[in-house]
Parts: sequence; structure tokens; C-alpha cells
Amino acid sequence: MEKFDLHILGCGSALPTTHHHPSAQVVDLRDKLFMIDCGEGAQLQMRRSRLKFSRLNHIFISHIHGDHCFGLIGVISTFALLGRTADLHVYGPATLEPVLRLQLSTFCPGLEFNVDFHPTTPEYALIYEDRSVQVYTLPLRHRVPCTGFLFCERPILPHIRRDMIDFYHIPLYAIRTIKEGADWELPDGTVIPNERLVRPADPPRRYAYCSDTAYLPSLVRYVEGVDLLFHEATFGADNQARAAETLHSTAEQAATLARDAGVRRLVIGHYSARYEDEHVLLNEAQAIFPQTVLAQEGLRLQV
Amino acid sequence: MEKFDLHILGCGSALPTTHHHPSAQVVDLRDKLFMIDCGEGAQLQMRRSRLKFSRLNHIFISHIHGDHCFGLIGVISTFALLGRTADLHVYGPATLEPVLRLQLSTFCPGLEFNVDFHPTTPEYALIYEDRSVQVYTLPLRHRVPCTGFLFCERPILPHIRRDMIDFYHIPLYAIRTIKEGADWELPDGTVIPNERLVRPADPPRRYAYCSDTAYLPSLVRYVEGVDLLFHEATFGADNQARAAETLHSTAEQAATLARDAGVRRLVIGHYSARYEDEHVLLNEAQAIFPQTVLAQEGLRLQV
Repeated sequence: MEKFDLHILGCGSALPTTHHHPSAQVVDLRDKLFMIDCGEGAQLQMRRSRLKFSRLNHIFISHIHGDHCFGLIGVISTFALLGRTADLHVYGPATLEPVLRLQLSTFCPGLEFNVDFHPTTPEYALIYEDRSVQVYTLPLRHRVPCTGFLFCERPILPHIRRDMIDFYHIPLYAIRTIKEGADWELPDGTVIPNERLVRPADPPRRYAYCSDTAYLPSLVRYVEGVDLLFHEATFGADNQARAAETLHSTAEQAATLARDAGVRRLVIGHYSARYEDEHVLLNEAQAIFPQTVLAQEGLRLQV
Repeated sequence: MEKFDLHILGCGSALPTTHHHPSAQVVDLRDKLFMIDCGEGAQLQMRRSRLKFSRLNHIFISHIHGDHCFGLIGVISTFALLGRTADLHVYGPATLEPVLRLQLSTFCPGLEFNVDFHPTTPEYALIYEDRSVQVYTLPLRHRVPCTGFLFCERPILPHIRRDMIDFYHIPLYAIRTIKEGADWELPDGTVIPNERLVRPADPPRRYAYCSDTAYLPSLVRYVEGVDLLFHEATFGADNQARAAETLHSTAEQAATLARDAGVRRLVIGHYSARYEDEHVLLNEAQAIFPQTVLAQEGLRLQV
């Protein structure tokens, strides 16, 4: 399986605690890094997770609450100190751009790389694609415009069967077309069907990030069957009214969405500072959706 | 002695490391807190040092390099979440204000306290005073306009001698005037001279912060005899040319200034990320000025 990992850099909420950093994650897809949200201290957390700054070219910001974006200028500033020249792409609400531009002109004059800003809107839309991945925004419901992000691995070609290649003396130049579905004809005219030469590809995997948001059953259609779902669980059942009022979710609501969407695994985070021990949130979620884990700083999950 | 402490929240330089946080300090003078510089993560470091946010009303920024100010919006944003209503005073170069204002309007709409910005210029000037302290800017030499800060405790009244007060049956209402220098007359007309009634006050103490700066012998006149001097020592003797080029100081230069100014104690910091172990810097400094200590996160020094 090719690498498709999620690194949790921070999974606390707005108030700083000594247990948790504010929201930041990195998706590592075949050694290309994609940052999701960038709370204060994200650059330090990235260094602690031993992720290479030079492999990060895309940063996705869900919304303009400070605990999701105050670390952005620090990351970019450090890129500048490290002599970066590659373009950096930032995706986020349009209201973020003027602040970012003023920060760049004030703190990073003479920047030697472009910062391309791509405004997002809270709807389901393809915002990035390359040979390995497509990234979509998801419409969330929060106190300010907010999007989730869905990372869809591109279909992978089937695996070549080394033993068959050797057995039929198939030359190297033919392997690409066989991977793409071609049969192989031997010198005597015998045709070896493609399915004897390859093993089926691993099914493409998907990761969905939903934070911050009120419980939103309409998300099911977008995250149905994903391999990994990060869903915020700011509160427990003891604070259901507070969750509704602040447009956040409870652990039970996160688990209900995961169950209804039939996802493979759920990871919850964005914990309110009032929970000293998040196992109360884990227990509430697992009662509804057993394949739930708690996010924590430094955690790496395979999608 | 009344409380006059320095808390080191961060003493690294621009590139983040897992050993050090960027520049931030808190002066605790009789339970009033004054922050000096506010690098990314300062609010979390303040929490780790168990310093109360509600006691902080003044933040002093030396210059607009990111490692000295990227944590400012995070601190203010957290104040807002905690329901602060007291005015906050920020002192720093004028170029910082437009960024701060745009950050406030974007990220903290409906703020319930004033953020008063006081522009500084790199010269020796009184910028703040109250009953306990006077704060002066100091002119430093760096790649952008930069000021140091000098904290001068106000002269303290002498200590009253409890035993004498009891012996002569001096009423409570007279104590203030005796502290201010008055003698006391007994009912029979005998005059008890003031010096029998009080012990001399502790001499007022001073703390000077000099970062970031090239070696600047002209600072001696401002920091002469201070009780504690923080001076940047970004580099060691192995990087003297680099120090000159980037307008930073070496450990030897920091120590030379401390020695020439006859300060009581020197604390060095703002270490370049290239020094895994700063004892090489400490040794170089102590060879010139033995009363040198290394800054480190969480360190508290009594001024």
C-alpha cells in the first residue's frame, strides 16, 4: 500500500491548554504533505512530528477562527528563512487573504516564493487535484463560513505479477500498458489475458475532515464509506445545549454521523478545554460507533 | 523585598527548534505582569509558567521580526475568549499597528476591551510609568528599527520598625507620614527622630532587556549598574562574522557589555538554532563576565 497517513499536530479547541495544541493536521500522501488548518504553534508541532517543511506545498484552512489559522504566518515565515523558492498554495475563506497579504508585506518583505491564495466557499467542490489525489471542500455549519475537506486518493493501477513477467519473459517496456489493462501476446501467437498478469489494485482510499461544525446529517452523502473520518467532538453529552448554541458537536453526534455514513474509522478531536480526560468523550462515541479513536498530538493514523 | 521577577517564556531565535520557543518574557513586579516580546506560542508558555492572564495589561514589542511578535494576536484572542474587559496596552514599532488592527477586526469582532497601541521609536524615552515602575525604551541596532526596554522600580519607602511603633504606642494613622520621613512627638514633648522608627528601604532595582541587537557599546550608559541584564547572544565566537552581518551579538560581546556596564547579573538568550548545547555560549560569556546565566524556558530569575 502506498503511504496515506494522517498526522495530528493539534487537537484542542480555542482556549489554550497545556495538554493540547490548537487545530492542525498533516496528510502525507506518497510523501507529498498537505496541511489542514494551522493553529498557533503548527510549525513547531510539524518539526516534532519530523515532517519535512520542503514537502509541504498546500495548506487548507477551514475557517477564520484563530485556533485554526494563527500559525499560518509562522509557517510561511520559516519557509522564507529556510530559503524556499517553490510556490505555496493556501486555500481558505476569502476574508483570510487581506490579513495574510498584509502580514507578508510587513513581516516577509522580499519573499522568494509565491503565496497563491485560493478562496473557498462552504459547498461541495473540487479545489485541488494532481496525479495522486483530489481534494474537495465540504459545506459545514459553524458561526462563520466553514468548510471541511475530503481527500480522495486517485485510483491506483493494478500490481504487476513479477512471477508471470519472468515466466513469459515480458520486456520492461510493456509493463506500463499491462498495468493499464493490456493482454500480452507470446511469439507463438498465444494471448495471455491481462488478469493472469496482474493482481487487482488496492481500492482508492478517502479521508474526510469535518471541523468545526454543528451536527449535520446532510454530511452523510459526502463522507459515505470513507476510510477515515475526523469529526470534531468539542463537547460531551453533559454539554449538548452548549454544543447546539456554539454550533459545535458532541462526541455522540460525531459517532452518529460516522455510523450513518458507514465510515471505516472515526477519529474525534477539537476537545473543549473543560475535559481534563477525553475518555469520557471516547466512551460516549464508542457506545454508538465502536471504531472510534481519540486524536492526540503526535498521533499518526494510516488512512 | 517586594516581588520583581523575570520569567523566560521563550529564548530561541527565528528558526523554530524543539528545544526553544521564540522570544517572550514576563516581568512580574508586585503581581503586575508586563510582557516583553510575544513570539508564537507565548500564551501557551505563559500558561505553563502559571502566570495569570488577568494580571497582564502591558505588552512591549521590541521589533517586527516574527519571532518577537507572532504570538500577539493569539494572546489577545484568548483574552477575548476569557471575557476580558480591561484595556490592554501594546507598545511597539508603528508598522505593527496596521497588522494588529486588521487582525483584530478579522478575528476578534466585537472585542469588549480596548487595545491601545503606543508607537515606539529606537531612542531612550520614558514610555510607561505607574506607582511601582517606570519603563524606558533603549535604542538598539538591528536590521529593522528595534528597541530594548529598561524597567526601573520606583523608590520604595523605608520599612517601619514594628518594635518601636509598639514601644512608643504610635497610632496606625501616623505610620504613612513616618514612612515618608516624619519624626514622632510623644505626649511629654520628647521627639523620636525618624531614623529610630524606620529601617532604610531596599534600593530600587532595574532590569534591562536588549534583544535583538548588534554589539553596541553605547548601551553602557543606559544599563550601567542594572541588577539584571538580558542581552541576546545569538552566536558564539565561531560565528562572529555572521553576527556582525546579521546585526546580532556573540556571547562574548554580551558579556563585554555586562562587564563594562558593571551590571550585577547577565542572562543570555536568543540562541541560534545551530547550537544544540548552549553551554559553549555560557563558557565564552563567563570567561569575560562570570555572573552570567543561560536563559531557558520556564526559568524565573529574581531581579
